[in-house]
Amino acid sequence: MNVRVGVIGVGMIGQDHIRRITQVLTGGSVTAVNDVDAARAGQVAAVLPGASVHPTAQDLVADANVDAVLVASWGPAHEEQVLAAIAAGKPVFCEKPLAPSSAACLRIMDAEMAAGRRLVQVGFMRRYDAGYREMKAALDDGGLGAPLLMHCAHRNPSVPDYGFTTELIVSDSAVHEMDIVRWLFGEEIIAATVLTPRRTRQAADGLQDPLILLLEMASGALVDDELFVNARYGYDVRGEVVCETGTVALADVSEVTVRTQNRHSGRVPVDWRDRFIRAYDAELQEWLNAVATGTSTGPTAWDGYAAAAVTDAALKALRTGQRTPVTMAERPEFYAK
Amino acid sequence: MNVRVGVIGVGMIGQDHIRRITQVLTGGSVTAVNDVDAARAGQVAAVLPGASVHPTAQDLVADANVDAVLVASWGPAHEEQVLAAIAAGKPVFCEKPLAPSSAACLRIMDAEMAAGRRLVQVGFMRRYDAGYREMKAALDDGGLGAPLLMHCAHRNPSVPDYGFTTELIVSDSAVHEMDIVRWLFGEEIIAATVLTPRRTRQAADGLQDPLILLLEMASGALVDDELFVNARYGYDVRGEVVCETGTVALADVSEVTVRTQNRHSGRVPVDWRDRFIRAYDAELQEWLNAVATGTSTGPTAWDGYAAAAVTDAALKALRTGQRTPVTMAERPEFYAK
Amino acid sequence: MNVRVGVIGVGMIGQDHIRRITQVLTGGSVTAVNDVDAARAGQVAAVLPGASVHPTAQDLVADANVDAVLVASWGPAHEEQVLAAIAAGKPVFCEKPLAPSSAACLRIMDAEMAAGRRLVQVGFMRRYDAGYREMKAALDDGGLGAPLLMHCAHRNPSVPDYGFTTELIVSDSAVHEMDIVRWLFGEEIIAATVLTPRRTRQAADGLQDPLILLLEMASGALVDDELFVNARYGYDVRGEVVCETGTVALADVSEVTVRTQNRHSGRVPVDWRDRFIRAYDAELQEWLNAVATGTSTGPTAWDGYAAAAVTDAALKALRTGQRTPVTMAERPEFYAK
Amino acid sequence: MNVRVGVIGVGMIGQDHIRRITQVLTGGSVTAVNDVDAARAGQVAAVLPGASVHPTAQDLVADANVDAVLVASWGPAHEEQVLAAIAAGKPVFCEKPLAPSSAACLRIMDAEMAAGRRLVQVGFMRRYDAGYREMKAALDDGGLGAPLLMHCAHRNPSVPDYGFTTELIVSDSAVHEMDIVRWLFGEEIIAATVLTPRRTRQAADGLQDPLILLLEMASGALVDDELFVNARYGYDVRGEVVCETGTVALADVSEVTVRTQNRHSGRVPVDWRDRFIRAYDAELQEWLNAVATGTSTGPTAWDGYAAAAVTDAALKALRTGQRTPVTMAERPEFYAK
Repeated sequence: MNVRVGVIGVGMIGQDHIRRITQVLTGGSVTAVNDVDAARAGQVAAVLPGASVHPTAQDLVADANVDAVLVASWGPAHEEQVLAAIAAGKPVFCEKPLAPSSAACLRIMDAEMAAGRRLVQVGFMRRYDAGYREMKAALDDGGLGAPLLMHCAHRNPSVPDYGFTTELIVSDSAVHEMDIVRWLFGEEIIAATVLTPRRTRQAADGLQDPLILLLEMASGALVDDELFVNARYGYDVRGEVVCETGTVALADVSEVTVRTQNRHSGRVPVDWRDRFIRAYDAELQEWLNAVATGTSTGPTAWDGYAAAAVTDAALKALRTGQRTPVTMAERPEFYAK
Repeated sequence: MNVRVGVIGVGMIGQDHIRRITQVLTGGSVTAVNDVDAARAGQVAAVLPGASVHPTAQDLVADANVDAVLVASWGPAHEEQVLAAIAAGKPVFCEKPLAPSSAACLRIMDAEMAAGRRLVQVGFMRRYDAGYREMKAALDDGGLGAPLLMHCAHRNPSVPDYGFTTELIVSDSAVHEMDIVRWLFGEEIIAATVLTPRRTRQAADGLQDPLILLLEMASGALVDDELFVNARYGYDVRGEVVCETGTVALADVSEVTVRTQNRHSGRVPVDWRDRFIRAYDAELQEWLNAVATGTSTGPTAWDGYAAAAVTDAALKALRTGQRTPVTMAERPEFYAK
Repeated sequence: MNVRVGVIGVGMIGQDHIRRITQVLTGGSVTAVNDVDAARAGQVAAVLPGASVHPTAQDLVADANVDAVLVASWGPAHEEQVLAAIAAGKPVFCEKPLAPSSAACLRIMDAEMAAGRRLVQVGFMRRYDAGYREMKAALDDGGLGAPLLMHCAHRNPSVPDYGFTTELIVSDSAVHEMDIVRWLFGEEIIAATVLTPRRTRQAADGLQDPLILLLEMASGALVDDELFVNARYGYDVRGEVVCETGTVALADVSEVTVRTQNRHSGRVPVDWRDRFIRAYDAELQEWLNAVATGTSTGPTAWDGYAAAAVTDAALKALRTGQRTPVTMAERPEFYAK
Repeated sequence: MNVRVGVIGVGMIGQDHIRRITQVLTGGSVTAVNDVDAARAGQVAAVLPGASVHPTAQDLVADANVDAVLVASWGPAHEEQVLAAIAAGKPVFCEKPLAPSSAACLRIMDAEMAAGRRLVQVGFMRRYDAGYREMKAALDDGGLGAPLLMHCAHRNPSVPDYGFTTELIVSDSAVHEMDIVRWLFGEEIIAATVLTPRRTRQAADGLQDPLILLLEMASGALVDDELFVNARYGYDVRGEVVCETGTVALADVSEVTVRTQNRHSGRVPVDWRDRFIRAYDAELQEWLNAVATGTSTGPTAWDGYAAAAVTDAALKALRTGQRTPVTMAERPEFYAK
């Protein structure tokens, strides 16, 4: 079966997903696009044979030639668009965040539960990364004992000088670790603390970079997450889970070793696309497969909600300098693992 | 454009390519199959919506619903099948070897030249491996100086006890290095020598395993290639090119590092699919793209011929124990790089 | 010149230093020993040609055949013994801690300042480790920019079931990081916080293992230090300093790589001796050389005091669960870098 | 006991051993020196308290203040000097080669057998390298099965432009692998072949660099050894032994990993001293210990002879381009392992 996808939001991420569906993956096509910038939507559609341009997201969702919806618009628009897809009974892949507030995420969950089946997948692509998957397999195997700690680092070479705030480091960068540790550990995060180390002089005025985010898991396991968006030397995502009888860590993955000038060396990825491109591919292929077979896999609306709730706590922790408990609703049976 | 592929030979490799075209890649579909085992062809086609089964390869090639042909039959049948595709003016992807003899390869080249455009691609998938590609980029960059030596190792965990001969180690395993060093160094191989070290007791009676194959390049650069088909510990392909001011080597690629029981360790691939699956995917996707756009990339009939000529020399070297020059026709302008 | 060393305390550490001086290093001999356990002192001296046994530490210090004193007794005895050496004008190497309280360390500093020259070296052997030295060279070089963060882990395979308390993890294990970060960063620690993650079931009842110790440097740079004394898989000391344009980390040092059973692997040290034996050798050789030439290098009484002051704060932080500022005297000119 | 060493030959190597004995190791002192350059001998002795300068090697050997002799003169002088030490019944450490011809080595063996006890140790320091020792332990353990192949590379950054000949690459560089593979495999080398790849343009006129030396072991195991004395990028000694069920290889040993400018990298040693300094230290310390206790360990005159015999064959192989059997006397019972 060919899944006909309607894409809402055709900025950088949306266009990248369109390229993926049309030029990399199998089983999908892009039949409709919508964007707040109608001209941009038109340009994108122009090179997609047979794709229609819709004036509104609601209109796109209603299109009979759209089997499933991919939401890549900006965060504040997600709730309404995802709710529209649910109302239409169409599967929807929503880029993170599911919605900017946990309250909005709860409304999405309510709508999905009312619809009676899982329609929403949230774009936490790290779950599809080969490294994290092998890490999770090592943890689930049990041979290393219970996980006690995780050390993470999330380093970007740089961010735009204008418009990138300290809050965004938490809500945009750290959200990836918030989701991945929930998934790796199989439990919820109950509290967050943010530490503010010495600032790099490479950061724009007013940006507190790096940060250390501490996350406490329900079991007591503790995660420290270095967030550094001006690391300069490359895009580097590191992680080591410390268990009772051993540890498992993301490795430096370099295809070749070069020896020259008294160094042996390997490549560090240049940016997030370089690092996670295969994870994005796997993520969307699995989603297309699931849509085609009427099944559901991947991060759910509950996962989107949990990330939003932890983000709320982390942002409050950043403001107050205090350890902040995460406030979360009880997990509905509908979203049982 | 959707490329409609007819697959000749639906054994293990053929089926894997079908899976790839239908479940992994974009822009292709399998519309026809043929196999010497008609029952097997029928079973494979049964799960391919709309695919027809053809009694002969020629019949498949002639099918108007076949835009391009993929040959995955056994080697002795390749020549006739590839020639049929050329005669029909249809692009053909042929698994290695292009043909079992260099004379047969020359006939294919003649036919292709007569057809006036490149129709043949040979399945040397290593050229699509990220490691070899980064290695070639490092060499082509020039910063390391001219390449002088290459050390290769090609280790399989095991081979079937019956039917796997010492000659197959040369013609089936070593052929991958024969092609990759020609590509990496950008020059031809002019002589081969085979050394026969101490045999492993893990090999079946009569099998000389491991072997060392020495290849001399036109520039004088020298390649030593360890071929070991009962290495037991895993599937491991190693390579280091030694240049005038530095070296570049395939690295151990392991997604995670595990620390336990006084060791830190990473994964070794279990088999060739595990190691090269992404190279196979990239290879066939690029072929589909090239077919769709009427262009041509990848290893040519000339590359298939050169590998066959080197294989001839290496097999003679194995028999005689002597250094054996490679006998090759001159490279036609048609196949200029 | 041969430095005649008197050793106070001939338990495990003291005996190891005696072995080092007599069987590994050059320029020293052991001429006198003392221990609270007179029988043990006698046994040790019996195999040291010409070494005398002294009933008290003071008596040993006064021995005309003793040029320099090595204190390897238990911590509470250090102050009196070091003061005796200072009073006698003899160089003294004191195993860490210099003294169990910062007040005692201050008294030692006062005595040394009164003596007018540096006589005391404290046994922070990590400063002599090739890894930390290369790390410090990379930082001092300046090419990586200012250091902002350091991630440390200090993992022991196990500790004795009886007698090893949570406080000891701070005062005995973490003290090594307290010193090394002061040395690497070239500045003081101003506050400490202790976090208590999920306990390993491998720890004895009542032991909070692992711990996370957070150290704040005067510059604002932040250090997180995982302390895990039942890590089981080996003895592993890890460290990464994150700077403005790059990072430098202790590497896995394994002399050989073994490939077997689908893993490539290297050795993890089995215990602290295995990991740091060469650092201990270098430390004591440099001390002997300094004594022989009447000079002074290495960690000073001030360093011992600073470690004690940070330990005080960290122990209070452990008790209270609060961030605790470090209370320190001003650094006397005498101890200027 | 203090071993009083007389050093014959105080060029670079001799002076380095003197530094080692006087400033690094324990249990030895240098009491006498001799050199063909009397002025140099005098300068060296001037800074060695109590050391005498001898006009001839024989005179030094006869000195009653000399317990043992270290020969670091040039190769052609070794035979006479070592024979003098044997005649005097004094242990002698002789830098490699034991003597330039295998005939001369045989004469040394005869003299030593006549003396009735092992007096001669040859300076093959790699046997004391931690990497090779761990490799040998892995082989001797048996868990990897029988060794079948070894791949070696021996790379120097550069050699002097004048006076360094292709023959020296074999007799001076390759001799280290000749010894180490005999020791690792526990068997003799029976034939040698030399291959001459494309020359680097970094080599002086007339120098064939790199070379490939093939060594055949008695068991049939095969060793390929890349010898490259203008590798430029650093001093790099590599080795991988391929066994029936696994391999063991020298690892890149780097104390720290630096991440900067999109690379993660480690150090390559700058020269042989940097790489093997600890092996030299261990070698000479074990020799001093053996002399002090009247025992004998380490490479024997037989090992020196075997290396000379293999060197003879390899030099002939270099001249003729042919595989050349090694001609060796039978191993006397006196030199049984």
